[in-house]
Formats: sequence, structure tokens, C-alpha cells
Amino acid sequence: MNHPQTILTGDRPTGQLHLGHYVGSLRQRVALQHNHQQFILIADLQGLTDNGSNPQKISHHILEVMADYLAVGIDPRLTTICLQSALPALAELSALYMNIVTVARVERNPTVKNEIAQKGFARSLPVGFLAYPISQAADITAFKAELVPVGDDQLPMIEQTNEIVHKMNSLTGEPVLRHCKALLSEVSRLPGVDGNAKMSKSLGNTLTLSATEEEIHHAVSAMYTDPTHLRVSDPGHVEGNVVFTYLDAFHSDKVRVAEMKAHYQRGGLGDRQCKNELETCLQTLLAPIRERRATFIQDKGMLLELLRQGSERAHHLTQQTLHEVKRGLGLPVLF
Amino acid sequence: MNHPQTILTGDRPTGQLHLGHYVGSLRQRVALQHNHQQFILIADLQGLTDNGSNPQKISHHILEVMADYLAVGIDPRLTTICLQSALPALAELSALYMNIVTVARVERNPTVKNEIAQKGFARSLPVGFLAYPISQAADITAFKAELVPVGDDQLPMIEQTNEIVHKMNSLTGEPVLRHCKALLSEVSRLPGVDGNAKMSKSLGNTLTLSATEEEIHHAVSAMYTDPTHLRVSDPGHVEGNVVFTYLDAFHSDKVRVAEMKAHYQRGGLGDRQCKNELETCLQTLLAPIRERRATFIQDKGMLLELLRQGSERAHHLTQQTLHEVKRGLGLPVLF
Repeated sequence: MNHPQTILTGDRPTGQLHLGHYVGSLRQRVALQHNHQQFILIADLQGLTDNGSNPQKISHHILEVMADYLAVGIDPRLTTICLQSALPALAELSALYMNIVTVARVERNPTVKNEIAQKGFARSLPVGFLAYPISQAADITAFKAELVPVGDDQLPMIEQTNEIVHKMNSLTGEPVLRHCKALLSEVSRLPGVDGNAKMSKSLGNTLTLSATEEEIHHAVSAMYTDPTHLRVSDPGHVEGNVVFTYLDAFHSDKVRVAEMKAHYQRGGLGDRQCKNELETCLQTLLAPIRERRATFIQDKGMLLELLRQGSERAHHLTQQTLHEVKRGLGLPVLF
Repeated sequence: MNHPQTILTGDRPTGQLHLGHYVGSLRQRVALQHNHQQFILIADLQGLTDNGSNPQKISHHILEVMADYLAVGIDPRLTTICLQSALPALAELSALYMNIVTVARVERNPTVKNEIAQKGFARSLPVGFLAYPISQAADITAFKAELVPVGDDQLPMIEQTNEIVHKMNSLTGEPVLRHCKALLSEVSRLPGVDGNAKMSKSLGNTLTLSATEEEIHHAVSAMYTDPTHLRVSDPGHVEGNVVFTYLDAFHSDKVRVAEMKAHYQRGGLGDRQCKNELETCLQTLLAPIRERRATFIQDKGMLLELLRQGSERAHHLTQQTLHEVKRGLGLPVLF
């Protein structure tokens, strides 16, 4: 039997996690933790790369995200949850890798290019943001991760990481670092409840994992459907219909969803009924998560202690990689 | 009585130290260590910023530079000598500072601009080199240094450091970091033995601290003087005359040098006699340094142990600063 593969994944603690995270990654992580060596990094340093002047936003959400993880069923006995800023090896490896990556190369990275444009940085681009693909390569390689769950927009980051691995291994003369592979998510990105392709807190079109019963009810009621579907008897469209996108993502009975779609398309199935069925799914899904989350978030000491334990395990592992890299470069390891 | 001020200084271990270092900094450090809290950083990480593909060049010279320090009389009981790559707080503080400094700001730094042009980087500029003013600010502030010995070409680095201090202190809400001042060297840069303004190993116009008696003799004999001073009786020029520049730098009897200059200018003092006097100075200065250095460099274990002890002291201090900064930003300090 093969050894369990190592996975590194994580989130920037810029806000509470929401349904988009649940569908896009959290659900997958809960499944993966049983047969993989899984590390989840709360990437506070990366969160600061575009929140340098608002550190409280990042620091406040570290334990919020920790509570989200535990609430959805990520089990700290199966998954190592750790804090990026608690792991000095990550910053130290970044500092070493920065010398073998040119400014031109990071500027050419399509992911970085898009994000710089999206965030409207222009002349105010922080050095840390420009360098974040290198920092991400440091994260991945420090854990010797073999699999990195990403969206397809993140593939250039994996490519850049493997370039660094190749260059570093040729400098150290032995394969100290491990090449990694993308683990592409099967699910496409969940749209906002308003139908906007991007679900984000700033657009107010998200449902967090702590959403109340009323918030869920309200969000589903207001959900974008098919503007041409005026009467129940009219044939309706399911493509671009957020209710059906969400039913696809959250309904456990795929046959039932297929039947509903056919019924909706030929006419005779009302938006109200579809929304009721979706609301039931979401209420059923979120009720226990919300409840567990509420208990966890009240015990910040416990959250911090679990984060400390995970970070300590991660510290030992990442220090080992750092020391191997240093020795490979001929740098003394003094203590 | 005032507390002794804290000084941070150091060298990139890119080669053995030479007479230029002795005049420009080493001599001053030996004096300063008696009434200051002096830290000397062997800046291997900074050395790698433009030697990323040749790490052995840097790693090889770490103990060479350590031996140079001890040989000239830097006393590890008075001065803390430490290794940059052994101090994780420096890389971690850099990572934090990078988020509050824009790419435009480092590109505008005149020192960086000049060096990028000098080194002919263009499109091959490593990210680490672009970021090195930030890394230098991390070094200075981690030690809470008040005084930083620099040449006047390095003043923009001090300015940039103080900008970071100001911004960071405003984010943390209290004066966690300390502003620093430049300690300008009184001596102007020592020219190469060939008269070139820049003394460097690559130009072959330097005398290392381990130069042999024969190397010193040969270098002084070949030294550039005054091409218009053809006969001993001719009046000669002392400006631009390397022998007199070196006599100014190394002769202990300033009155004697002034007399020689006057004699040379009115005619009647030969180059040979001046060179003999200079050679005596240099042989007298370098003989004991060379001897001590030869003993030290044979005991790499001892050099490494002294470097470890100094780095451990520096580690405690710099970790403290890092923890203060983290707490100020609201980031948890887990261990």
C-alpha cells in the first residue's frame, strides 16, 4: 500500500468562511483527512499582503476561521491546522527563494497579474503582494506537500512553485524539495446568492457558516432565479438560475434534483417550491455547523490551544525542511 | 550617565575583508565596542540577494569574515557577532514590513537604483535584491539599533528604515520600534592600490587582511603615485597620489605625513622613500593581524562556536522585538 499523500491547503483569514468555501474546499477537506496527511494553513501573513495597513482585520479572523474549520468537521486529530505567522521556516525559506526568482518572473505570473489588476494596486503595490507566489512556494515546499487543492486560476502558482523546487534542488545538489501537483476541485465556483459569479462578503451576497435561520430564509427568498419564468406554468431556465446551481451543490438526492430541473424546464414547477426545497437543504446543513461553531467561538482559549498544538507539529516539520535547504546551500545550522 | 547606545553593523560575506574594510569600518568597530552595545551581523542572506545561484561563495566566507573580525581585535566578549540566517526574526520582520512598503517606494530608493544599474540586473533583478532595503530595515529594527555606521551613499537606507519604523509604530499604536541614526564614517573610501576609486577583489587591487609580506611589498611597489613626478627633484602632487592617501589612512604620526607631503610637493622626496615608509606601516599593521588570523582560521570549530554563542544572544533579543511587533499587530504568539 502507498503511504498517505501530503496535502497542503489553507485560507487567508480575511473574514468568516461561507457557503462558497464549504462547497469549494471545506467539504473536500473533511473527506480527504481520512486518507491523507493533511495540513491546513491559516495564512495570516498572506492575508496581510493586501491588508498591511489593517492588520486587525486579519488577526481578528484567525480564530473565526479556526472555529469554522472545527464546525464543519475538520478534525485536529486527523488534520494539522496551523498558523502561518507561527512558522518561522516559511518566512526564512521565502527569503532564500526570493534570490532565485526574478521580478520579471513574478510579474509574468498570470494569477498575480490578474489579482494586481483586480485589486487596482498600480503604483501602490506592496512588495509583499508582489512576492506572494514565492511565499506560497515556501509554504508548499516547507511541508513537502505533494498535492495542493486549487482552482484552475491558481495553476500558474503550482507551476512557479515547481520552478523554484527545480532550481533549489539543482543548487543543493540533491532533491531536498518535492515537486507538487494541483488537486483540481471538481465543483465550479459557487455564485453569490444574487447571481454574481463572485461570492464575497464585500458584495453582501454570501451566507457565512454562522448564518442564522432567518438569514438563510431571507437569502433563499431573495435568490435570483429566471426572470422569464413569470407564471408557474411557464417553462423556466435552469442555467444561470442560482436556485438550481445551489440545489446541485447542496441537495443530497441528485435524482430528485434532475427531476425538478426537468419539471421546471417544461413548466409547472414554481420558484417558491424550489426555494423551499433548497432552504430545507441549507437549514439542515447549516444548523449543526452553526451550533457547533457558536460553542467553539466562545472558547477562544481552546481554539488557541488547538492552533498552538497544530502549529507546533508543523513547526518541527517545516524546520526540518529549512535545515535541509540550508545545509544544501552550505549555510551553517547553528541551533 | 547615559546608557550605552546600541549599534548594528555588519558585512556581506562575499570575500575576505581587506584594507578598505579595515579603514572604513573595522578600526572604528574595535574602538566603538568599549562604550557601545555593538552587534555585528554577518549578512549571509543579504549576500545571497545577488549571489542566489552561487550560494557556496557566501557560505564559504562566513567563517573567513569571522576570522577577520577576531584578527583585527573585535572582541566577542564586548561585541555580539551573529549570523543573519540564524535569526528567524529577521526574515519574519521582513515579511511583515514588505506589506507596508510599495514596490514604487523601493524602486525610488537611490541606493537601490544605483546598485541595480551598477550590477546590470535589468530584467534579471531578483525579488530578494529589490526587497533588500526592507530586509535591512528588519535587521536594524530587530536589534533596536540607535546608530548604524554607514557611508553617505547609504543614507537613503536609513531614511527608508525610519519610514518603516514610523508606519509600523502607527499600526501597533505604540513605539515598539526605535528610530535610528546614521553614524557617518569620518574616513573617505580607501582607493584600490592601483588608484581606482573602488577597491574590490574582482579588480585585483586590494590587500586582504591575510596578505603575505611579499604581497604587501609587491602591492606597495606597484602603487600608483604621480605620473608627472619623473625625477626625485621634481615637485610632485599628493592629491590623487595613492601612496599619500594610504599614508594618511595608516601612518600613526600625522605630523610626519604632513612634513612628507610638503617635501614631496616642493621636490626632493622620492617615490621609493615614500613607499618604503608606507610599506613599513602596512607590514607593522598587518603582521600581527595575519598571524592571529592564521591561527583562528585553522580552528573552524571555535569560530563556529563563537558565532553560535553570539547568534544565540542576538536570537533572544530579536525574538523579543518580533513578539512585540506581532502583539502590536494583534497576531498571536503561540510559542
